[in-house]
Amino acid sequence: MMQDKHYLMIPGPTPVPPAVTAAMSMPIIGHRTDAFAKIHERIVEKLKLVFQTKNDIFVLTNTGTGALETAIANTVSPGDKVLSLITGNFGERFANIAKAYNAEVIEVNFGYGNDVDLAVVEKKLAEHPDVKVVLATQNETSTGVCNDIEGIGALVAETPALLLVDGVSGVGAIEIKVDQWGVDMLCTASQKAFMLPPGLAMVSVSDKAWEVSKNNKSPRFYFSLPAFKKVYDKWNTAYTPAVSLFYGLEASLDMMLAEGLDNVYARHALLAKATRAGVRALGLKLLAEDRCASNALTGVWGPEGIGADDLRKIIKNEYGVTFAGGQGAVKGKGFRIAHMGFCDRMDVIIAISALEMALAKAGYEFQLGAGVKAAQEVLLGR
Amino acid sequence: MMQDKHYLMIPGPTPVPPAVTAAMSMPIIGHRTDAFAKIHERIVEKLKLVFQTKNDIFVLTNTGTGALETAIANTVSPGDKVLSLITGNFGERFANIAKAYNAEVIEVNFGYGNDVDLAVVEKKLAEHPDVKVVLATQNETSTGVCNDIEGIGALVAETPALLLVDGVSGVGAIEIKVDQWGVDMLCTASQKAFMLPPGLAMVSVSDKAWEVSKNNKSPRFYFSLPAFKKVYDKWNTAYTPAVSLFYGLEASLDMMLAEGLDNVYARHALLAKATRAGVRALGLKLLAEDRCASNALTGVWGPEGIGADDLRKIIKNEYGVTFAGGQGAVKGKGFRIAHMGFCDRMDVIIAISALEMALAKAGYEFQLGAGVKAAQEVLLGR
Repeated sequence: MMQDKHYLMIPGPTPVPPAVTAAMSMPIIGHRTDAFAKIHERIVEKLKLVFQTKNDIFVLTNTGTGALETAIANTVSPGDKVLSLITGNFGERFANIAKAYNAEVIEVNFGYGNDVDLAVVEKKLAEHPDVKVVLATQNETSTGVCNDIEGIGALVAETPALLLVDGVSGVGAIEIKVDQWGVDMLCTASQKAFMLPPGLAMVSVSDKAWEVSKNNKSPRFYFSLPAFKKVYDKWNTAYTPAVSLFYGLEASLDMMLAEGLDNVYARHALLAKATRAGVRALGLKLLAEDRCASNALTGVWGPEGIGADDLRKIIKNEYGVTFAGGQGAVKGKGFRIAHMGFCDRMDVIIAISALEMALAKAGYEFQLGAGVKAAQEVLLGR
Repeated sequence: MMQDKHYLMIPGPTPVPPAVTAAMSMPIIGHRTDAFAKIHERIVEKLKLVFQTKNDIFVLTNTGTGALETAIANTVSPGDKVLSLITGNFGERFANIAKAYNAEVIEVNFGYGNDVDLAVVEKKLAEHPDVKVVLATQNETSTGVCNDIEGIGALVAETPALLLVDGVSGVGAIEIKVDQWGVDMLCTASQKAFMLPPGLAMVSVSDKAWEVSKNNKSPRFYFSLPAFKKVYDKWNTAYTPAVSLFYGLEASLDMMLAEGLDNVYARHALLAKATRAGVRALGLKLLAEDRCASNALTGVWGPEGIGADDLRKIIKNEYGVTFAGGQGAVKGKGFRIAHMGFCDRMDVIIAISALEMALAKAGYEFQLGAGVKAAQEVLLGR
């Protein structure tokens, strides 16, 4: 393996495009300046197109977990009843944050590789009419499952509860309609489909969430949205923002808007379809059913008798390609191929070819070339 | 196609590794300083390992053509007899430079796709015992043919002539032994296997070439090696050097030496073999015979009935992969896939898969996936 010749295919951080790196290398400016305020304003206007919302969007200097804690800290008071819809590790984390804030959390776990069952949600909401907050995951990073936020939103809309959505690995790769689908807070971060290094979180806040936030009893300072709101209208930030990441975010948003958001989502859908076809053609099993498979990453069960982590080592050491390991129930037994953000058709070919050659080296029996051929057929629209 | 997602596979300029880009972004320093002298000295010591020489090596701020002209301007006087061994466009260019310096040039053209025939060289040298300079190309960029410099060197060594070698697209990808093979001047440049942007030329000078250079009658100022030699021993340069490219050159030499030069050459040989196998499996014809095929790039005849340049357009626009067009006799009828410099196994997969998918789109009849499979087999050592 050649030094520096790497293909990072983990579900965040993801590769950063040269134009974004170049933007981030511009000189730092002070954040209490008109120049910064203008960048901030432009970023939020562009983010609103991605979120499909008229709500305020806060660009916060923390990460995905910080975004989730921001949502909880501002809407959950001690003793509040929270319904947590769990489809993997990150659903569990969202619930754990609510528990850390002393909520009474009703956890509904749909199991690894499954998505949220709307009938169960409807039943749980009926059983617990006093639920204050519902937690859902748009795209479950640990399994590669995409949940039906539109469907969940429609059910929550019939109750007084707020809907908080973890869109950390989904937003920018998979369409979400914050206003139309009734998402009260959408949380995402810079290092996934937004093609930036880690360090920024983005959170939208509906009017309904604002009302709750104002009187929320949980302690908060760095995560306080009312503190941010005080300066937001002047495009200032409460504390020091990660200035260079703001430059990068504007560059990546410009790339996404230049491509066209519909094209961005269609590209992710195509890459996911090709990846799944390639994996299947090698005789490997997918973690998620087609019905709920993520367009941002693909979870794969390792082959029988070959350690999934050993396979990943060959893929990385021999071909410079990095897949993510399995998480939770899949730990050591599977791997995840990300195809989100700065990712196009040849990345699928690289992923499947590296997987094929590693499988061949590991002694797995299959038809060499079958995976790439199947992926090519999808990419050719056959 | 996604903005910024490109795979540059032309025989120069070639992709620049991140470590080299990072080195080049360091602040510029003055060139008449101890700091610059130290960088200059270290670079030349490392270049001597690549050239396999104890000769002086001049790092000049110009390009490959500038390197060739430096060699001619310092060794060819008006009316001198020059034997020019031509295997393609760049062999022709070397001859044209000698003509521009009013040499009497004996051109021997071996034809596109062929290498130098040593028997012909032996005969020509016998016919013209007054030849002062022999011009040869290590790696002919226009066709992907590699010439036998060792064999040519052995023949020239039996005459009083100097051997000047164009190693612009070869050095760093294909082994060359300057001292052992009797190369009086080896010319190369930064933007090929050295993984740098264009802007630097490197020229080694034997004692025999120095003797000729001192009294050479051609006009020269910027290209004057004696002018450079005056300051070379203090690791100074005659004129302003491209400082940031010097930083980059040290970083790329460090990468090459860390990998090990034998490994660098073996990697290029493997990539060439896999590329050729992939192309053949698609039923396309190669420009060069295996015997003299370049390890730095592969020339390919386009398929019957499909324009080679149209095919390249699909490959670029749909898959972000750039091949070079045909040159000279192959213009419009073929293309060239470079696999030199910052290039590893997945690059071959990308090249062959993009070629396959473009062929499929262009209506060429073949077994989809066959090319990638054949390349994979070579990469797996089967």
